[in-house]
Amino acid sequence: MRIADLGEFPLIHRLERIVASDQDHADVLIGPGDDVAVLDVQGDNLLLATIDIQVEGIHFLPQLITPEQLGRRALAINLSDIAAMGGQPTFALVSLALPLDTEVDWVERLYRGMRTEADQYGVAIVGGNMTRSPAPISIDVALLGRVQREHLLTRSGAQPGDQVLVTGQLGDAAAGLQLAQHPHLPLSAADHGALLMRYLTPTPRVREGRRIAQAQCATAMIDLSDGLSSDIGHICERSRVGVRIRAAQVPIAPAVQHVARLTGVQPWHLALSGGDDYELCCTAPARAVPELMRSIKQETGTPLTVIGEILPSTAGRWLVLPDGQELALEEGGWEHFRNRQA
Amino acid sequence: MRIADLGEFPLIHRLERIVASDQDHADVLIGPGDDVAVLDVQGDNLLLATIDIQVEGIHFLPQLITPEQLGRRALAINLSDIAAMGGQPTFALVSLALPLDTEVDWVERLYRGMRTEADQYGVAIVGGNMTRSPAPISIDVALLGRVQREHLLTRSGAQPGDQVLVTGQLGDAAAGLQLAQHPHLPLSAADHGALLMRYLTPTPRVREGRRIAQAQCATAMIDLSDGLSSDIGHICERSRVGVRIRAAQVPIAPAVQHVARLTGVQPWHLALSGGDDYELCCTAPARAVPELMRSIKQETGTPLTVIGEILPSTAGRWLVLPDGQELALEEGGWEHFRNRQA
Repeated sequence: MRIADLGEFPLIHRLERIVASDQDHADVLIGPGDDVAVLDVQGDNLLLATIDIQVEGIHFLPQLITPEQLGRRALAINLSDIAAMGGQPTFALVSLALPLDTEVDWVERLYRGMRTEADQYGVAIVGGNMTRSPAPISIDVALLGRVQREHLLTRSGAQPGDQVLVTGQLGDAAAGLQLAQHPHLPLSAADHGALLMRYLTPTPRVREGRRIAQAQCATAMIDLSDGLSSDIGHICERSRVGVRIRAAQVPIAPAVQHVARLTGVQPWHLALSGGDDYELCCTAPARAVPELMRSIKQETGTPLTVIGEILPSTAGRWLVLPDGQELALEEGGWEHFRNRQA
Repeated sequence: MRIADLGEFPLIHRLERIVASDQDHADVLIGPGDDVAVLDVQGDNLLLATIDIQVEGIHFLPQLITPEQLGRRALAINLSDIAAMGGQPTFALVSLALPLDTEVDWVERLYRGMRTEADQYGVAIVGGNMTRSPAPISIDVALLGRVQREHLLTRSGAQPGDQVLVTGQLGDAAAGLQLAQHPHLPLSAADHGALLMRYLTPTPRVREGRRIAQAQCATAMIDLSDGLSSDIGHICERSRVGVRIRAAQVPIAPAVQHVARLTGVQPWHLALSGGDDYELCCTAPARAVPELMRSIKQETGTPLTVIGEILPSTAGRWLVLPDGQELALEEGGWEHFRNRQA
């Protein structure tokens, strides 16, 4: 059987069983199966570790992204994973695979982008590795972070009755991708540029994640990389709960609604299954939500919006469309190994 | 300018200057430019972090290595880097890029190999990442480790007058590569198999590295991945010293000498510039050497052999051939981006 037939998540589950060692690793609080490993290395802080790759032709097209933007993006997607744990990113390692005819200038600009992004979040790029590759270019970033034990937020912890919240607005990146693919859509230059940048160089919600964790009322958190409809499923699985998301409450920018109309898709479709927004999604008891929304907005400037509620596991996972229709919420996010036409 | 024209090490130096942040990162004791980052995260232990990739067609050929062997190798080359610091490896993250037609069975066998190697050294595989790739297969492993502050061994610290020592024997991997490329060389099946395995699944000298560091008499250490003639240069640079290596003292197995004769190269050439041996090379004051050799042999079973001495920087870097001829010691190791014909 080829991995395209099995799909990404079933393959990951198989591999998790293989790497589950018989040895006692009590210091591994969260291991394979999550985007971030949580490691107890003693002391007040837990060690966080994540790795994520950008492959030419899969995650980026050189003609659509500058090397500086790509460098920022390669770090940002890892920063977002640390943010989702409430963590402070600390150290990055960079592994590059490059064809021999790559321009030195291109590599230097890539590194300048990584450095810009790293500086913005107080991260030190502490090492890495370079190798030639027949093709394509790939940029693998391993990122470490730390979080105080009592501030760690994971995917497991959501309780029935909790509300579901997201930072910022969803669908910007999906709309930006549409614009990258259809550059002649009639949109204002300002909106065009802003959405494209949201797709190319997403803003990891590091400060927001830390503040949410420090408020100590949220029960679970995840970053939205594959799309809400897929990523909320990880919270449901790990927390053993159901969920009801209300599409009408999902915050969607007017420009995204415009792009949706121009391309003939529903705005909530871009927002729920588009992916690449790198906003945070958290859950919290209803009584704590108003103060959480107020304090995050005040401290970071970023809005938190309630978009649904956690249900008992037996109640299932539902999406309420703006017209009141209820759909079973399915993974609509990106699966790396599944043919999407299937 | 293309990276092939500049070469690997000049490119790395340029990128080091770019990532050198203006921010104060006092917690980065060793950063870019070394194989391993050394990070002060408070407490008794320093945090070690390294990353290394295996790319199909560059570092391995699927027809010459089983997926289990490849999994072991991908971990081993990183374990060796941690060993060279005197460290205890702890946690690994694995980033895989795979074509869609990769067999699930192949991936599972790769993971079994990684798990086997990880278990052997008490390492937990704590996470990772998988993505599809147009081609080729690449396996990126980020490995963390720890070392007590007083046991850290680095490349800087060698002093004129110190002796230069290596663990085990050199040239096995280079001979194994010859056998992989010329399978019909007339060699006993036992020697053939043993050398091939030394090339495919090198043994990281983790126990040896820790014992050498704990003995607290060695002044510098590095693992031999590119070849002694190249890797000893890193110690010379970072320690600001010269060196004299005596080819006649380099430990070379009889089977390697046999392969050298069959392929018409000098045995010391295989041993000095072959690379991939993943033995350790350390320096220590002459008065401490006999006890160091005795204790490492007794505690690990692995021999340490004196192969030369550290000179003042102004004395240069020299290789004394078995016939007494002296050659300026040049980088003969593998450079990833330089056309070797040049």
